Amino acid sequence: MSQRFDIEKSRVLYTLYCALEQGAVDPDAIPLLALLNAKCDYYTTSSCSGRVQLAATSLPGEKRRMVVLAKWHRPIETRELELALLSAERYNDLWLSVQGPILHVACRDQGSALHLLSASRRAGLKHSGILWIGRRVMVELTVSDRIETPLRLAGINVVSEEHLDFLVERVNAVLLRAKARLKRLEDEVARLP
Amino acid sequence: MSQRFDIEKSRVLYTLYCALEQGAVDPDAIPLLALLNAKCDYYTTSSCSGRVQLAATSLPGEKRRMVVLAKWHRPIETRELELALLSAERYNDLWLSVQGPILHVACRDQGSALHLLSASRRAGLKHSGILWIGRRVMVELTVSDRIETPLRLAGINVVSEEHLDFLVERVNAVLLRAKARLKRLEDEVARLP
Repeated sequence: MSQRFDIEKSRVLYTLYCALEQGAVDPDAIPLLALLNAKCDYYTTSSCSGRVQLAATSLPGEKRRMVVLAKWHRPIETRELELALLSAERYNDLWLSVQGPILHVACRDQGSALHLLSASRRAGLKHSGILWIGRRVMVELTVSDRIETPLRLAGINVVSEEHLDFLVERVNAVLLRAKARLKRLEDEVARLP
Repeated sequence: MSQRFDIEKSRVLYTLYCALEQGAVDPDAIPLLALLNAKCDYYTTSSCSGRVQLAATSLPGEKRRMVVLAKWHRPIETRELELALLSAERYNDLWLSVQGPILHVACRDQGSALHLLSASRRAGLKHSGILWIGRRVMVELTVSDRIETPLRLAGINVVSEEHLDFLVERVNAVLLRAKARLKRLEDEVARLP
Protein backbone atom coordinates (compact mmCIF):
# COMPACT_ATOMS: atom_id res chain seq x y z
CA MET A 1 0.00 0.00 0.00
CA SER A 2 2.83 2.32 0.94
CA GLN A 3 4.61 1.61 -2.34
CA ARG A 4 1.41 2.25 -4.28
CA PHE A 5 1.15 5.68 -2.59
CA ASP A 6 4.69 6.52 -3.77
CA ILE A 7 3.96 5.39 -7.35
CA GLU A 8 0.77 7.48 -7.46
CA LYS A 9 2.64 10.44 -5.98
CA SER A 10 5.28 10.27 -8.77
CA ARG A 11 2.57 10.16 -11.40
CA VAL A 12 0.62 13.12 -9.96
CA LEU A 13 3.79 15.19 -9.41
CA TYR A 14 4.85 14.62 -13.02
CA THR A 15 1.56 16.23 -14.13
CA LEU A 16 2.13 19.08 -11.66
CA TYR A 17 5.66 19.74 -12.98
CA CYS A 18 4.32 19.87 -16.55
CA ALA A 19 1.67 22.39 -15.44
CA LEU A 20 4.36 24.43 -13.63
CA GLU A 21 6.51 24.51 -16.77
CA GLN A 22 3.56 25.78 -18.77
CA GLY A 23 2.89 28.51 -16.18
CA ALA A 24 -0.53 26.94 -15.56
CA VAL A 25 -0.25 26.87 -11.73
CA ASP A 26 -1.60 29.75 -9.68
CA PRO A 27 1.64 31.44 -8.38
CA ASP A 28 0.36 32.16 -4.84
CA ALA A 29 -0.23 28.41 -4.32
CA ILE A 30 3.27 27.32 -5.37
CA PRO A 31 5.11 27.75 -2.00
CA LEU A 32 2.53 25.58 -0.20
CA LEU A 33 2.54 22.99 -3.01
CA ALA A 34 6.34 22.81 -2.79
CA LEU A 35 6.25 22.41 1.01
CA LEU A 36 3.61 19.66 0.97
CA ASN A 37 5.01 17.69 -1.96
CA ALA A 38 8.50 17.71 -0.43
CA LYS A 39 7.15 15.64 2.51
CA CYS A 40 7.04 11.89 1.98
CA ASP A 41 3.51 11.45 3.44
CA TYR A 42 1.67 13.97 1.24
CA TYR A 43 0.99 15.00 -2.33
CA THR A 44 -1.36 17.64 -3.71
CA THR A 45 -3.94 16.76 -6.33
CA SER A 46 -5.47 20.22 -6.95
CA SER A 47 -5.10 23.76 -5.68
CA CYS A 48 -6.40 27.31 -5.90
CA SER A 49 -4.93 30.14 -3.81
CA GLY A 50 -8.17 32.09 -3.85
CA ARG A 51 -9.68 34.13 -6.67
CA VAL A 52 -12.02 36.88 -7.83
CA GLN A 53 -14.42 35.81 -10.59
CA LEU A 54 -17.03 37.42 -12.83
CA ALA A 55 -19.58 34.93 -14.17
CA ALA A 56 -22.79 34.96 -16.15
CA THR A 57 -25.28 32.81 -14.24
CA SER A 58 -28.80 33.05 -12.93
CA LEU A 59 -27.76 31.74 -9.49
CA PRO A 60 -24.28 31.31 -7.98
CA GLY A 61 -23.06 27.72 -7.69
CA GLU A 62 -24.54 26.47 -11.00
CA LYS A 63 -21.10 25.31 -12.12
CA ARG A 64 -22.17 23.43 -15.24
CA ARG A 65 -24.34 26.22 -16.60
CA MET A 66 -22.36 29.33 -15.62
CA VAL A 67 -20.11 31.15 -18.09
CA VAL A 68 -16.89 32.39 -16.45
CA LEU A 69 -16.12 35.77 -18.02
CA ALA A 70 -13.04 36.79 -16.02
CA LYS A 71 -10.90 35.33 -13.24
CA TRP A 72 -8.10 36.89 -11.21
CA HIS A 73 -5.95 35.21 -8.53
CA ARG A 74 -4.96 38.63 -7.14
CA PRO A 75 -6.62 41.89 -6.04
CA ILE A 76 -8.29 43.72 -8.91
CA GLU A 77 -8.71 47.34 -10.01
CA THR A 78 -12.13 48.83 -10.67
CA ARG A 79 -11.24 49.54 -14.31
CA GLU A 80 -10.44 45.84 -14.86
CA LEU A 81 -13.91 44.96 -13.65
CA GLU A 82 -15.45 47.72 -15.79
CA LEU A 83 -13.62 46.36 -18.86
CA ALA A 84 -14.87 42.84 -18.14
CA LEU A 85 -18.40 44.23 -17.77
CA LEU A 86 -18.14 46.00 -21.14
CA SER A 87 -17.65 42.67 -22.88
CA ALA A 88 -20.53 41.12 -20.89
CA GLU A 89 -23.33 43.28 -22.22
CA ARG A 90 -25.21 40.38 -23.80
CA TYR A 91 -25.70 38.60 -20.45
CA ASN A 92 -28.76 39.27 -18.29
CA ASP A 93 -27.35 37.95 -15.01
CA LEU A 94 -23.87 38.65 -13.70
CA TRP A 95 -22.32 37.68 -10.35
CA LEU A 96 -19.02 38.75 -8.88
CA SER A 97 -17.43 36.37 -6.38
CA VAL A 98 -14.42 35.93 -4.14
CA GLN A 99 -13.48 32.44 -3.05
CA GLY A 100 -10.72 31.60 -0.58
CA PRO A 101 -7.96 29.02 -1.09
CA ILE A 102 -8.87 25.36 -1.60
CA LEU A 103 -6.40 22.46 -1.78
CA HIS A 104 -6.82 18.70 -2.06
CA VAL A 105 -4.06 16.69 -0.45
CA ALA A 106 -3.56 12.91 -0.57
CA CYS A 107 -2.13 11.65 2.74
CA ARG A 108 -0.37 8.32 3.24
CA ASP A 109 -2.48 7.30 6.24
CA GLN A 110 -4.87 8.48 8.94
CA GLY A 111 -2.07 9.69 11.21
CA SER A 112 -0.52 11.95 8.58
CA ALA A 113 -3.99 13.25 7.64
CA LEU A 114 -4.69 14.19 11.28
CA HIS A 115 -1.34 16.00 11.54
CA LEU A 116 -2.25 18.02 8.45
CA LEU A 117 -5.73 18.78 9.82
CA SER A 118 -4.20 20.01 13.11
CA ALA A 119 -1.86 22.30 11.18
CA SER A 120 -4.81 23.55 9.16
CA ARG A 121 -6.87 24.29 12.31
CA ARG A 122 -3.95 26.18 13.88
CA ALA A 123 -3.80 28.30 10.71
CA GLY A 124 -7.51 29.11 11.11
CA LEU A 125 -8.93 26.91 8.30
CA LYS A 126 -11.64 25.48 10.48
CA HIS A 127 -13.78 23.87 7.75
CA SER A 128 -10.95 21.64 6.50
CA GLY A 129 -11.72 17.95 6.67
CA ILE A 130 -11.04 14.41 5.51
CA LEU A 131 -13.10 13.82 2.36
CA TRP A 132 -12.45 10.10 2.12
CA ILE A 133 -10.42 7.30 3.67
CA GLY A 134 -9.42 4.52 1.28
CA ARG A 135 -6.10 3.49 -0.26
CA ARG A 136 -5.08 7.05 0.53
CA VAL A 137 -6.67 9.60 2.84
CA MET A 138 -7.96 12.64 0.93
CA VAL A 139 -7.97 15.94 2.84
CA GLU A 140 -9.61 19.18 1.69
CA LEU A 141 -7.97 22.32 3.08
CA THR A 142 -10.41 25.18 2.72
CA VAL A 143 -11.13 28.70 3.89
CA SER A 144 -14.72 29.88 4.17
CA ASP A 145 -14.05 33.52 3.17
CA ARG A 146 -16.58 34.31 0.44
CA ILE A 147 -18.35 37.05 -1.45
CA GLU A 148 -21.10 36.16 -3.95
CA THR A 149 -22.77 39.32 -5.11
CA PRO A 150 -24.98 40.05 -8.12
CA LEU A 151 -24.01 42.97 -10.38
CA ARG A 152 -26.82 42.47 -12.90
CA LEU A 153 -30.13 40.63 -12.46
CA ALA A 154 -32.74 40.14 -15.20
CA GLY A 155 -30.91 42.70 -17.34
CA ILE A 156 -30.85 45.40 -14.64
CA ASN A 157 -27.62 46.64 -13.06
CA VAL A 158 -28.38 46.25 -9.35
CA VAL A 159 -25.04 47.82 -8.36
CA SER A 160 -24.56 51.06 -10.27
CA GLU A 161 -21.21 51.80 -11.91
CA GLU A 162 -20.47 54.68 -9.53
CA HIS A 163 -20.53 52.25 -6.58
CA LEU A 164 -18.19 49.62 -8.04
CA ASP A 165 -15.20 51.26 -6.30
CA PHE A 166 -16.68 50.53 -2.86
CA LEU A 167 -17.39 46.95 -3.82
CA VAL A 168 -13.95 46.31 -5.32
CA GLU A 169 -12.30 47.61 -2.13
CA ARG A 170 -14.15 44.97 -0.04
CA VAL A 171 -13.62 42.26 -2.64
CA ASN A 172 -9.87 42.83 -2.43
CA ALA A 173 -9.93 42.93 1.38
CA VAL A 174 -11.68 39.54 1.57
CA LEU A 175 -9.29 38.02 -0.99
CA LEU A 176 -6.21 39.31 0.87
CA ARG A 177 -7.55 38.11 4.24
CA ALA A 178 -8.06 34.64 2.72
CA LYS A 179 -4.57 34.62 1.20
CA ALA A 180 -3.10 35.64 4.56
CA ARG A 181 -4.57 32.42 6.00
CA LEU A 182 -2.73 30.50 3.26
CA LYS A 183 0.55 32.10 4.47
CA ARG A 184 -0.20 30.96 8.04
CA LEU A 185 -0.89 27.48 6.68
CA GLU A 186 2.54 27.48 4.98
CA ASP A 187 4.19 28.23 8.34
CA GLU A 188 2.25 25.40 10.02
CA VAL A 189 2.92 22.89 7.22
CA ALA A 190 6.66 23.70 7.33
CA ARG A 191 6.67 22.36 10.91
CA LEU A 192 5.04 19.02 10.01
CA PRO A 193 7.18 15.85 10.16
CA MET B 1 -15.04 3.47 24.31
CA SER B 2 -18.36 2.31 22.88
CA GLN B 3 -20.09 2.81 26.26
CA ARG B 4 -18.58 6.28 26.56
CA PHE B 5 -20.11 7.18 23.18
CA ASP B 6 -23.55 6.10 24.45
CA ILE B 7 -23.17 8.14 27.66
CA GLU B 8 -22.13 11.24 25.71
CA LYS B 9 -24.99 10.68 23.28
CA SER B 10 -27.52 10.63 26.16
CA ARG B 11 -26.10 13.85 27.57
CA VAL B 12 -26.12 15.68 24.22
CA LEU B 13 -29.63 14.44 23.34
CA TYR B 14 -30.97 15.66 26.70
CA THR B 15 -29.79 19.18 25.76
CA LEU B 16 -31.37 18.79 22.32
CA TYR B 17 -34.73 17.72 23.80
CA CYS B 18 -34.70 20.77 26.11
CA ALA B 19 -34.01 23.00 23.10
CA LEU B 20 -36.83 21.29 21.16
CA GLU B 21 -39.26 21.87 24.04
CA GLN B 22 -38.35 25.56 24.06
CA GLY B 23 -38.91 25.79 20.29
CA ALA B 24 -35.24 26.75 19.92
CA VAL B 25 -34.47 24.25 17.13
CA ASP B 26 -34.73 25.32 13.51
CA PRO B 27 -37.88 23.39 12.31
CA ASP B 28 -36.50 22.43 8.87
CA ALA B 29 -33.61 20.60 10.57
CA ILE B 30 -35.80 18.48 12.87
CA PRO B 31 -36.60 15.55 10.49
CA LEU B 32 -32.90 14.97 9.79
CA LEU B 33 -31.98 15.33 13.49
CA ALA B 34 -34.64 12.75 14.37
CA LEU B 35 -33.40 10.33 11.70
CA LEU B 36 -29.74 10.60 12.70
CA ASN B 37 -30.26 10.48 16.46
CA ALA B 38 -32.51 7.40 16.13
CA LYS B 39 -29.50 5.45 14.80
CA CYS B 40 -27.21 3.92 17.40
CA ASP B 41 -23.95 5.01 15.71
CA TYR B 42 -24.69 8.74 15.41
CA TYR B 43 -25.71 11.83 17.36
CA THR B 44 -25.93 15.46 16.25
CA THR B 45 -24.11 18.19 18.16
CA SER B 46 -25.27 21.24 16.17
CA SER B 47 -27.42 22.06 13.17
CA CYS B 48 -28.72 24.79 10.91
CA SER B 49 -31.05 24.05 7.99
CA GLY B 50 -29.85 27.09 6.06
CA ARG B 51 -30.70 30.76 6.61
CA VAL B 52 -30.94 34.29 5.29
CA GLN B 53 -29.16 36.88 7.45
CA LEU B 54 -28.76 40.66 7.55
CA ALA B 55 -25.65 41.77 9.44
CA ALA B 56 -23.75 44.96 10.15
CA THR B 57 -20.10 44.28 9.38
CA SER B 58 -17.31 45.81 7.36
CA LEU B 59 -16.43 42.43 5.77
CA PRO B 60 -18.39 39.16 5.72
CA GLY B 61 -17.00 36.40 7.94
CA GLU B 62 -15.93 38.64 10.84
CA LYS B 63 -18.03 36.58 13.23
CA ARG B 64 -16.84 38.16 16.46
CA ARG B 65 -17.28 41.73 15.31
CA MET B 66 -20.47 41.51 13.21
CA VAL B 67 -23.87 42.51 14.57
CA VAL B 68 -26.62 40.17 13.36
CA LEU B 69 -29.69 42.35 12.73
CA ALA B 70 -32.12 39.76 11.36
CA LYS B 71 -32.13 36.05 10.62
CA TRP B 72 -34.68 33.88 8.82
CA HIS B 73 -34.58 30.10 8.31
CA ARG B 74 -37.11 30.39 5.44
CA PRO B 75 -37.62 32.43 2.26
CA ILE B 76 -38.22 36.13 2.95
CA GLU B 77 -40.40 38.87 1.52
CA THR B 78 -38.94 42.14 0.30
CA ARG B 79 -40.95 44.12 2.86
CA GLU B 80 -39.38 42.08 5.70
CA LEU B 81 -35.95 43.05 4.43
CA GLU B 82 -37.06 46.69 4.05
CA LEU B 83 -38.32 46.69 7.66
CA ALA B 84 -35.03 45.25 8.90
CA LEU B 85 -33.16 47.92 6.92
CA LEU B 86 -35.28 50.67 8.50
CA SER B 87 -34.01 49.72 11.94
CA ALA B 88 -30.42 49.53 10.64
CA GLU B 89 -30.00 53.16 9.67
CA ARG B 90 -27.19 53.79 12.14
CA TYR B 91 -24.90 51.18 10.54
CA ASN B 92 -22.50 52.13 7.73
CA ASP B 93 -21.93 48.62 6.38
CA LEU B 94 -24.65 46.04 5.81
CA TRP B 95 -24.36 42.60 4.21
CA LEU B 96 -27.14 40.20 3.25
CA SER B 97 -26.23 36.53 3.17
CA VAL B 98 -27.65 33.10 2.45
CA GLN B 99 -25.92 30.08 3.93
CA GLY B 100 -26.84 26.47 3.23
CA PRO B 101 -27.43 23.75 5.83
CA ILE B 102 -24.62 22.76 8.18
CA LEU B 103 -24.70 19.88 10.67
CA HIS B 104 -22.13 18.40 13.02
CA VAL B 105 -22.54 14.70 13.67
CA ALA B 106 -20.61 12.55 16.15
CA CYS B 107 -20.06 9.03 14.73
CA ARG B 108 -19.17 5.96 16.75
CA ASP B 109 -16.22 4.97 14.56
CA GLN B 110 -14.53 5.43 11.22
CA GLY B 111 -16.80 2.95 9.45
CA SER B 112 -20.01 4.70 10.49
CA ALA B 113 -18.46 8.08 9.57
CA LEU B 114 -17.62 6.81 6.06
CA HIS B 115 -21.17 5.49 5.62
CA LEU B 116 -22.52 8.92 6.53
CA LEU B 117 -20.07 10.65 4.17
CA SER B 118 -21.16 8.35 1.32
CA ALA B 119 -24.80 9.21 2.01
CA SER B 120 -23.87 12.90 2.06
CA ARG B 121 -22.02 12.66 -1.29
CA ARG B 122 -24.97 10.85 -2.89
CA ALA B 123 -27.18 13.75 -1.72
CA GLY B 124 -24.81 16.22 -3.42
CA LEU B 125 -23.10 17.68 -0.30
CA LYS B 126 -19.65 17.31 -1.78
CA HIS B 127 -17.74 19.47 0.74
CA SER B 128 -18.78 17.32 3.72
CA GLY B 129 -15.87 15.84 5.61
CA ILE B 130 -14.44 14.31 8.78
CA LEU B 131 -13.33 17.17 11.03
CA TRP B 132 -11.55 15.03 13.59
CA ILE B 133 -10.95 11.40 14.60
CA GLY B 134 -10.57 10.83 18.31
CA ARG B 135 -12.78 9.17 20.92
CA ARG B 136 -15.55 9.84 18.44
CA VAL B 137 -15.38 10.74 14.75
CA MET B 138 -16.78 14.23 14.07
CA VAL B 139 -18.36 14.78 10.65
CA GLU B 140 -19.43 18.12 9.19
CA LEU B 141 -22.25 17.87 6.65
CA THR B 142 -22.30 21.04 4.63
CA VAL B 143 -23.67 22.57 1.45
CA SER B 144 -21.65 25.24 -0.34
CA ASP B 145 -24.65 27.27 -1.59
CA ARG B 146 -23.94 30.86 -0.61
CA ILE B 147 -24.75 34.49 -1.25
CA GLU B 148 -22.77 37.23 0.53
CA THR B 149 -23.78 40.58 -0.87
CA PRO B 150 -23.32 44.12 0.43
CA LEU B 151 -26.40 46.35 0.66
CA ARG B 152 -24.62 49.35 2.20
CA LEU B 153 -20.89 50.20 2.14
CA ALA B 154 -19.33 53.22 3.89
CA GLY B 155 -22.81 54.66 4.45
CA ILE B 156 -23.86 54.38 0.77
CA ASN B 157 -26.64 52.05 -0.38
CA VAL B 158 -24.93 50.11 -3.16
CA VAL B 159 -28.15 48.25 -4.03
CA SER B 160 -30.97 50.74 -4.40
CA GLU B 161 -34.33 50.01 -2.77
CA GLU B 162 -36.09 49.61 -6.13
CA HIS B 163 -33.80 46.65 -6.94
CA LEU B 164 -34.28 44.73 -3.68
CA ASP B 165 -37.10 42.66 -5.24
CA PHE B 166 -34.71 41.16 -7.81
CA LEU B 167 -32.19 40.35 -5.11
CA VAL B 168 -34.74 38.79 -2.74
CA GLU B 169 -35.97 36.52 -5.54
CA ARG B 170 -32.45 35.09 -6.02
CA VAL B 171 -31.80 34.92 -2.26
CA ASN B 172 -34.90 32.76 -1.86
CA ALA B 173 -33.98 30.58 -4.84
CA VAL B 174 -30.53 29.82 -3.38
CA LEU B 175 -32.01 29.10 0.06
CA LEU B 176 -34.63 26.74 -1.38
CA ARG B 177 -32.07 24.94 -3.55
CA ALA B 178 -29.91 24.40 -0.46
CA LYS B 179 -32.87 23.14 1.58
CA ALA B 180 -33.77 20.73 -1.24
CA ARG B 181 -30.32 19.14 -0.77
CA LEU B 182 -31.19 18.66 2.92
CA LYS B 183 -34.30 16.71 1.84
CA ARG B 184 -32.17 14.48 -0.39
CA LEU B 185 -29.83 13.95 2.56
CA GLU B 186 -32.81 12.84 4.70
CA ASP B 187 -33.66 10.17 2.10
CA GLU B 188 -30.06 8.95 2.03
CA VAL B 189 -29.68 8.93 5.84
CA ALA B 190 -32.93 6.96 6.18
CA ARG B 191 -31.24 4.12 4.24
CA LEU B 192 -28.17 3.98 6.54
CA PRO B 193 -27.75 0.95 8.84
